[in-house]
Amino acid sequence: MKLYESLAAEIEDLVAQGVLRPGERLPSVRAQQERRGVSPSTVFQAYYQLEARGVIVSRPRSGYFVAPRASPEPEVSRPDAASTAVDVSSLVFQVLDASRAPGNVPLGSAFPSPTLFPLEKLARSVSNSMRRIDPWSTVADLPPGNAELRRQIALRYQLDGAPVAADDIVITNGALEALNLCLQAVARPGDTVLVESPSFYAALQALERLDLKAVEVATHPREGIELGALAEALEQHRPKACWLMTSFQNPLGSLMPPEKKQALVALLAQHGVPLIEDDVYGELYFGAQRPALAKRYDADGLVMHCSSFSKCLAPGFRVGWAAPGRYARAVERLKLTTSLAAAMPSQLALADYLGQGGYERHLRQLRAALARQRDLMLEAIAAHFPAGTRVTRPQGGYFLWVELPQGCDALALHAQALERHISIAPGPMFSAKRDFGNCIRLNYGQVWDGAMEAALAELGRLACAMSG
Amino acid sequence: MKLYESLAAEIEDLVAQGVLRPGERLPSVRAQQERRGVSPSTVFQAYYQLEARGVIVSRPRSGYFVAPRASPEPEVSRPDAASTAVDVSSLVFQVLDASRAPGNVPLGSAFPSPTLFPLEKLARSVSNSMRRIDPWSTVADLPPGNAELRRQIALRYQLDGAPVAADDIVITNGALEALNLCLQAVARPGDTVLVESPSFYAALQALERLDLKAVEVATHPREGIELGALAEALEQHRPKACWLMTSFQNPLGSLMPPEKKQALVALLAQHGVPLIEDDVYGELYFGAQRPALAKRYDADGLVMHCSSFSKCLAPGFRVGWAAPGRYARAVERLKLTTSLAAAMPSQLALADYLGQGGYERHLRQLRAALARQRDLMLEAIAAHFPAGTRVTRPQGGYFLWVELPQGCDALALHAQALERHISIAPGPMFSAKRDFGNCIRLNYGQVWDGAMEAALAELGRLACAMSG
Repeated sequence: MKLYESLAAEIEDLVAQGVLRPGERLPSVRAQQERRGVSPSTVFQAYYQLEARGVIVSRPRSGYFVAPRASPEPEVSRPDAASTAVDVSSLVFQVLDASRAPGNVPLGSAFPSPTLFPLEKLARSVSNSMRRIDPWSTVADLPPGNAELRRQIALRYQLDGAPVAADDIVITNGALEALNLCLQAVARPGDTVLVESPSFYAALQALERLDLKAVEVATHPREGIELGALAEALEQHRPKACWLMTSFQNPLGSLMPPEKKQALVALLAQHGVPLIEDDVYGELYFGAQRPALAKRYDADGLVMHCSSFSKCLAPGFRVGWAAPGRYARAVERLKLTTSLAAAMPSQLALADYLGQGGYERHLRQLRAALARQRDLMLEAIAAHFPAGTRVTRPQGGYFLWVELPQGCDALALHAQALERHISIAPGPMFSAKRDFGNCIRLNYGQVWDGAMEAALAELGRLACAMSG
Repeated sequence: MKLYESLAAEIEDLVAQGVLRPGERLPSVRAQQERRGVSPSTVFQAYYQLEARGVIVSRPRSGYFVAPRASPEPEVSRPDAASTAVDVSSLVFQVLDASRAPGNVPLGSAFPSPTLFPLEKLARSVSNSMRRIDPWSTVADLPPGNAELRRQIALRYQLDGAPVAADDIVITNGALEALNLCLQAVARPGDTVLVESPSFYAALQALERLDLKAVEVATHPREGIELGALAEALEQHRPKACWLMTSFQNPLGSLMPPEKKQALVALLAQHGVPLIEDDVYGELYFGAQRPALAKRYDADGLVMHCSSFSKCLAPGFRVGWAAPGRYARAVERLKLTTSLAAAMPSQLALADYLGQGGYERHLRQLRAALARQRDLMLEAIAAHFPAGTRVTRPQGGYFLWVELPQGCDALALHAQALERHISIAPGPMFSAKRDFGNCIRLNYGQVWDGAMEAALAELGRLACAMSG
């Protein structure tokens, strides 16, 4: 047993014995190092191992904590291997319409609370950039988009170890448009696309709208899509693309470890299948560093990396982008014929904001707030939900995936919760086959308060009544 | 002969005899009325008739003028009746890329000069609205879009005699997205869509991208699509939609008279075929009042009216909309799954700007500038282009369609002009069949100056050399 393994085992014992209690802060790395006389890297390795096993959690700027008292994790999904024509839109719209009603506790929302965003600074950036505007920029910022904004984004790719030329970045009307354009660049009506199970409903809706078939692939709630199942699906279905969320998947919150991302890219390259990497939550990590991009391992230009500022900075600005590798020119042209260009005031304002250098500080605050809210919600679920409930423990993003005991019906729970002014996202939204009938997705991106606590307790009561 | 007809005939004689010279101002309606002792309506009717026949032109805020010395008009187009798979994108991109090079005289541009827009006032509206922003609006302005902006647009529909409920207006990322979503709401891959001949290249590109077939229908250079030819095409091709620019068509500048629009709507309703009415130039009229919308005659909810602020107020803001009649909910859902929402800073700023009431004054100035520039360009073409050149005399918008003598090759002219830093839009861009090989579209939306005059002279020399 290596030194870091014995240190990890020791701490795990303390947690099991109740010496270290849920939510309690662990000794700092420095304290371990000084008092135990081990190297910092030994402590880090021990803590990483414990974090990977769900024993402890990290919170940005605060350190490591014993994992909150939480229900066990869900199992790996086991979707049917057949391809499916998609028809989820009616259900999704029904849920979204209901969730938008003002006054509801928005646990079904797809966004974090806008009060977590630097709206005043963004407003100043909008005003600044409009005062300095060159009239011709209003017609010149056609695809691939504003040059300064693309330069700022390219700088971030370089820091993430996945260098992309500014000219190969296409600015879009949010990540959703980027993903849609990437899909259209590689798939024609009737083609098949592989997605996770459960998968983000907007991906399913995009497939539905473009007459594409979905194959849902088994997905681990902590480590993302199962590569064995993926390899089989590649052989069996000869898909035209694979659309995955590699970091903090919506709804699972799963994070593919770096070596798994590398293996994923290699596997897809073997089959010549492009990866549409939906990475809109990648910046919202709670660990020590940004999760690797699958794009980082892309030697063939087959990874089409898509992201946006909508989940971590400025939702209403509708600025996203694609870094589509060898498909950059095709995506640029599709952007031009689909909606010409992204809004110029939004592009200029974000370029100004990024240039001022406050983005990292904002992100650190946002990550810390989200991590805290995750733990509070996990505690509330453990306290109020029926025995047999399983829940994910994501290392980033702002969604929990809750598997209720058999007998609970997520759609019925959604209806009952709405009557009590609580919105949730029921599981069948996340499957072309309407699987996950006893699962729900909860948003912990809202600021935690008494109403939130009460809503969780109420949801728990409703679920308990259902599970008999 | 009625009184107004004899007055019109009199004036036409004066023009023919050279007593009234090209570009000369006609006596005002009041002067005619007072000195001739006829009613104002007699004078108006006479002037309208002369304007419809191309003898005189009106200029906003200036009155009526003898039509500039101009080449004759082109004939009605006679496209092949077969349907065509579309493949124009490569040519279009080649031309657009070349046209965007800085330093070129942008006669091939699709936009008027941005210096004609009220950029300072818009910048103030952006700042105002961002200062007052409600954080939740950043996630709440999902389709159909910002409520105040939709209310302002609904007010304008009411003034135009085509009342539309604010809730049936879907805000989009420019008119191009609105048109694309309308098309997707009614047509599936493989379906056929009727368009004008020549037609706007972006319409052809949208058909190409969505695997739709185009049937180009004969179009009159002054009065728009030929209803006889349209009726035949409806019988022969059973199209799923008809995509037309009813006012100041791009590239012809044709304006369907109101009774023709009414007959168009009735004809399409008979066949149950939706009309996608692309009306982005409708506000840029040079006559006394805004041309009627085909939407005005729509009793069945089959007219999907699309427009934007991009051509007449704020190009870079990328705010357009659709009023899709019975397809409103379908379009709203497509918007949600395609790109979620339009940019919130742009929507709020335009709602603020419209609420301040300066839009009409800006439009009057813009129309006057465009009308003046049209006449200057018509004069320049008459002076410099080869004998046998034909050119449209549009009553609005900012495009001239120039038919060069046989022997002139628009693509070769495009290439030669580019070497001289002049961009033009060659005719084959405007046809799925690459017709119009001797036609070009010129943009008179740029501020007229010496460089513009010199560019026209140079183009004329190149064309003369070709027609040899």
